[in-house]
Amino acid sequence: MHVGQKLQEQAATGRPGISFEYFPPKTAQGVQNLYDRMDRMHDLGPAFIDVTWGAGGSRSELTCEMVRIAQTVFGLETCMHLTCTDMPRERVDAALEAAYNAGCTNILALRGDPPREQEKWEAAEGGFRYAKDLVKYIREKYGNHFDIGVGGYPEGADDNSDVDQLIDHLKEKVDAGSTFIVTQMFYDVDNFLNWVDKCRAKGINAAIIPGIMPISTYDAFMRRSNWTKIRIPPDWLEKLEPVKADDAKVREIGSKLVAEMCRKLLASPQIHHLHFYTMNLAQATRLILEELKLLPSEEAPLHKPLPWRRSLGLRRRSEDVRPIFWRNRNASYIARTADWDEYPNGRWTDARSPAFGELNAYGVRLKGTNEQNIKLWGAPKSIKDLSDIFLRYLNGKLERLPWSDSSVTPETSDIHNELVDLNKRGFLTINSQPAVNGVKSTDPVHGWGPRNGFVYQKAYLELLVPPEHVDELLRRIEKNPDLTYYCVNKTGELKARSDEGPNAVTWGIFASKEIIQPTIVESVSFMAWKDEAYQLGDDWAKCHPADSPSRKLLQRVMDEWYILNIVNNDFHKKDDIFRLFDGLVIKDFETEVTGTAPVVANGTN
Amino acid sequence: MHVGQKLQEQAATGRPGISFEYFPPKTAQGVQNLYDRMDRMHDLGPAFIDVTWGAGGSRSELTCEMVRIAQTVFGLETCMHLTCTDMPRERVDAALEAAYNAGCTNILALRGDPPREQEKWEAAEGGFRYAKDLVKYIREKYGNHFDIGVGGYPEGADDNSDVDQLIDHLKEKVDAGSTFIVTQMFYDVDNFLNWVDKCRAKGINAAIIPGIMPISTYDAFMRRSNWTKIRIPPDWLEKLEPVKADDAKVREIGSKLVAEMCRKLLASPQIHHLHFYTMNLAQATRLILEELKLLPSEEAPLHKPLPWRRSLGLRRRSEDVRPIFWRNRNASYIARTADWDEYPNGRWTDARSPAFGELNAYGVRLKGTNEQNIKLWGAPKSIKDLSDIFLRYLNGKLERLPWSDSSVTPETSDIHNELVDLNKRGFLTINSQPAVNGVKSTDPVHGWGPRNGFVYQKAYLELLVPPEHVDELLRRIEKNPDLTYYCVNKTGELKARSDEGPNAVTWGIFASKEIIQPTIVESVSFMAWKDEAYQLGDDWAKCHPADSPSRKLLQRVMDEWYILNIVNNDFHKKDDIFRLFDGLVIKDFETEVTGTAPVVANGTN
Repeated sequence: MHVGQKLQEQAATGRPGISFEYFPPKTAQGVQNLYDRMDRMHDLGPAFIDVTWGAGGSRSELTCEMVRIAQTVFGLETCMHLTCTDMPRERVDAALEAAYNAGCTNILALRGDPPREQEKWEAAEGGFRYAKDLVKYIREKYGNHFDIGVGGYPEGADDNSDVDQLIDHLKEKVDAGSTFIVTQMFYDVDNFLNWVDKCRAKGINAAIIPGIMPISTYDAFMRRSNWTKIRIPPDWLEKLEPVKADDAKVREIGSKLVAEMCRKLLASPQIHHLHFYTMNLAQATRLILEELKLLPSEEAPLHKPLPWRRSLGLRRRSEDVRPIFWRNRNASYIARTADWDEYPNGRWTDARSPAFGELNAYGVRLKGTNEQNIKLWGAPKSIKDLSDIFLRYLNGKLERLPWSDSSVTPETSDIHNELVDLNKRGFLTINSQPAVNGVKSTDPVHGWGPRNGFVYQKAYLELLVPPEHVDELLRRIEKNPDLTYYCVNKTGELKARSDEGPNAVTWGIFASKEIIQPTIVESVSFMAWKDEAYQLGDDWAKCHPADSPSRKLLQRVMDEWYILNIVNNDFHKKDDIFRLFDGLVIKDFETEVTGTAPVVANGTN
Repeated sequence: MHVGQKLQEQAATGRPGISFEYFPPKTAQGVQNLYDRMDRMHDLGPAFIDVTWGAGGSRSELTCEMVRIAQTVFGLETCMHLTCTDMPRERVDAALEAAYNAGCTNILALRGDPPREQEKWEAAEGGFRYAKDLVKYIREKYGNHFDIGVGGYPEGADDNSDVDQLIDHLKEKVDAGSTFIVTQMFYDVDNFLNWVDKCRAKGINAAIIPGIMPISTYDAFMRRSNWTKIRIPPDWLEKLEPVKADDAKVREIGSKLVAEMCRKLLASPQIHHLHFYTMNLAQATRLILEELKLLPSEEAPLHKPLPWRRSLGLRRRSEDVRPIFWRNRNASYIARTADWDEYPNGRWTDARSPAFGELNAYGVRLKGTNEQNIKLWGAPKSIKDLSDIFLRYLNGKLERLPWSDSSVTPETSDIHNELVDLNKRGFLTINSQPAVNGVKSTDPVHGWGPRNGFVYQKAYLELLVPPEHVDELLRRIEKNPDLTYYCVNKTGELKARSDEGPNAVTWGIFASKEIIQPTIVESVSFMAWKDEAYQLGDDWAKCHPADSPSRKLLQRVMDEWYILNIVNNDFHKKDDIFRLFDGLVIKDFETEVTGTAPVVANGTN
């Protein structure tokens, strides 16, 4: 979606919009950390994010990759920066194509800083000299596919302090086809608003988005201010200087100062949106938003169009049906379906389901190094040890499990006690949702979709069960006509209630819409998930040395236990599923596996 | 669906199945009456119907047409009879093609009686001599598309009384590829069951369906029995002879006798289905079914796969979404969508909606002759007169209105008082459904779809409103965010709440299924319906002479009034829609239109 449209939508709500800017980190670990942060910062509700252009070979590739991951995996509407610096036309073409293929529809066209070794800016051979040339080129090449923004300089650019001349340049950039302006950082609000008036007086009608730089540390604040030569209000220095050695204090006072400045900006009828230079950090930005009361809250919850995070990848925007199995493995689902030509829209179609990608794509295999995972989950030696790990996850003490990328969701609280009971007894639950019999679509826990609607869920439970209890469990399930199930082991012996079709387990009823049914349970995708689920368990086992008790325990569970999923099709009933397990006791629950097997035998695994 | 599959499904329920046989009537009026009767007899729950082959030119065409109407309009699974008599191969080919195109998948292959002028049976040139040849031919030409049945003769055929030889012929017919046997009429159960045993002993394993001839009058009973030379149990004659002049008495006693015979048949483990020779009449068959307690009831309701009658036309079986507007105009909807290549399945798609057929197809224009309609609806002169007509329909005193082909449905009883109130005040309602917030899919009034499901409806109201109240009504509707609407007049000025998509107003949640949403409200089809609705009103006006008050009244209403439909998207609320009309009074409600306009002016209409 275009930034322009996002701004309009946001304006209609009467609530200011926000956006976050990130830059490509220098190390692989930095990239992973940033991804985790971008993912979490989605929940702060940015209308869009920016990814700056990483000038030079691999860093520019990283920009394209970050744009792709943000769009497709995190469902963040992204604006990709593109500079003229050091960019021959072919590289601009490649970058635009990468953005297009990522589903990205917004470009911020900049001239860019001169390369470090050069003092003065020069165009690359066959490249573009001014941002306006880049704007024109993108418009010519892609028509209206991209919304194009440009930079604004309320206090002058580093090689040009003539603000009025820069406004003339800005007018040319807008006339060339850009529709929004993101400004450089500043702290002098009066000067900024004066500059906005000047822009308007010159006939610049594009939306103006002030760029806000949070204050993390006193040093960074001073360095950046000096470097960009921006004015700092004298009282800011008076307040910050005395506490400059205390980072926490600087952040606290700084966030209040910046928040106050934002309040003044938003009081202007020209300003409806704040763009944050996050410097790849969450906390300073979050503090300002908290101060401004702009964080999602019970009164103004984050709008969830669907119960799962929508991907904004190319051709994926209309996707609105997914199997429940990857509920806690979003990145993996995106990766394993990346090659689909079309995405289920309205209903799950047979043609689609078989084509799940292989298990070696990005995000599919177990996260973390062996060491990290052993640190996280320890070295379980018995079913009871496993049970303890699952309980720690359920109680919010573990951030992930092999089958869940992120920590337990608030939705689970409805059935927390039942899940705890099952896991305490060694029935290891890997996915679940409680029954919901029509709550308002604005419900803070279960709600999703447009206002004035009602959402529903069938109770769902997926868990690992030891082979000795499978027959009895299936017998109990079959006795209740409202329950349907799939049960499979690693070798793929599938058992199911006969006549199973795609079963919609989450749906919503809205005004003037067809029914939306975003989550289904279905056999072909379950079999694809089963491969992944056992692979994740095998990966976990292999974190441990070949002859270790933990390796043997985990491998045995993966080799012998079944994955069972159960749907209660009567969504009025809350706990029939849990009653199925009454009285079942897992044998050798506390028995510790010993590490006596010959090394060779384990080595062949 | 194949008769064989129907028999299997029926057997699985443990309840005997029934089927009805009809023959092509000789007059156009007879055809229309039979269609009405077939439509009504759908509700007696036949697993399928038979249409006999009308030997000779136009009568055979009528068979094909009846098969098509039964399949597509009435949603009756049909078995078409086909005989060898007087049928060169090309005519057999044409008949099979017609059956195929009608969506028919069952053929009863018969040799047929010799043509009247001939004493002895002879094959047509290039035609088929025996039914087994016809069976083989159909199998060769259509593979397994058609299920093929053949005739059985428990008491001999009219030109062959050697029952054992006939069983040998039957074996040949079954071996040639037929899978079920429908027998000639009989009344001697012991002889029949003995014959069944003989068939089984000869290795005939096809399903055997006894043909049951109800008793309508004594004369017909005796004539048919003599003609077919079948045995009548002596006690039957003893019971019927004394009352032979009293048709009602004959039917009463006859239905008890035939019911008793059916009970004996069904007591045999070989017999699970009864085939009724209805002779195109409903009552005698219905009496027997009543006696046998085989009529749909609260305990064993007629299974409705969808809230509307499913068409079984070619390519139409998977259709499961329709606009609500034709709810009471099924034949018209079928006709206006007959040319579609695909039918909405799962959801309503944009591509589909514009292609509604013209208003001149069969079943679209106003039913009945001018005289019949004036007799039915009288000569209204005021809005109050119209109001009275609509009230009579609502109270079950009128079998149809221009916008409703059949009488008021039980479903309406939930909102009967509200509808009566509106119509009493001159707001003329032409379609409606009450809100249903999740009742079991087996609910006798609102239920549909598989067992163990829940069905829902949003309240819907469609009515004619005079122009002077439109603005106020729309103002009231817009005040309630749960209400959406379309409002249009004859010239097509459409008003609607902005951002309207297809709105699912009926849906069902079932075990192991995606959500089914069989009824929607949507603008493009509403505009197609609007043309039809005003055309029907114009047709009604034109039943009356050009300068008559009724013509002028009806024409004025059609030219000036709006059609307004309203959906309450909050399906928990029962009567918000009706409250919208509080306090609105239609002007000149009782004023009678006079017939003074010059004939010429009206004549140009």
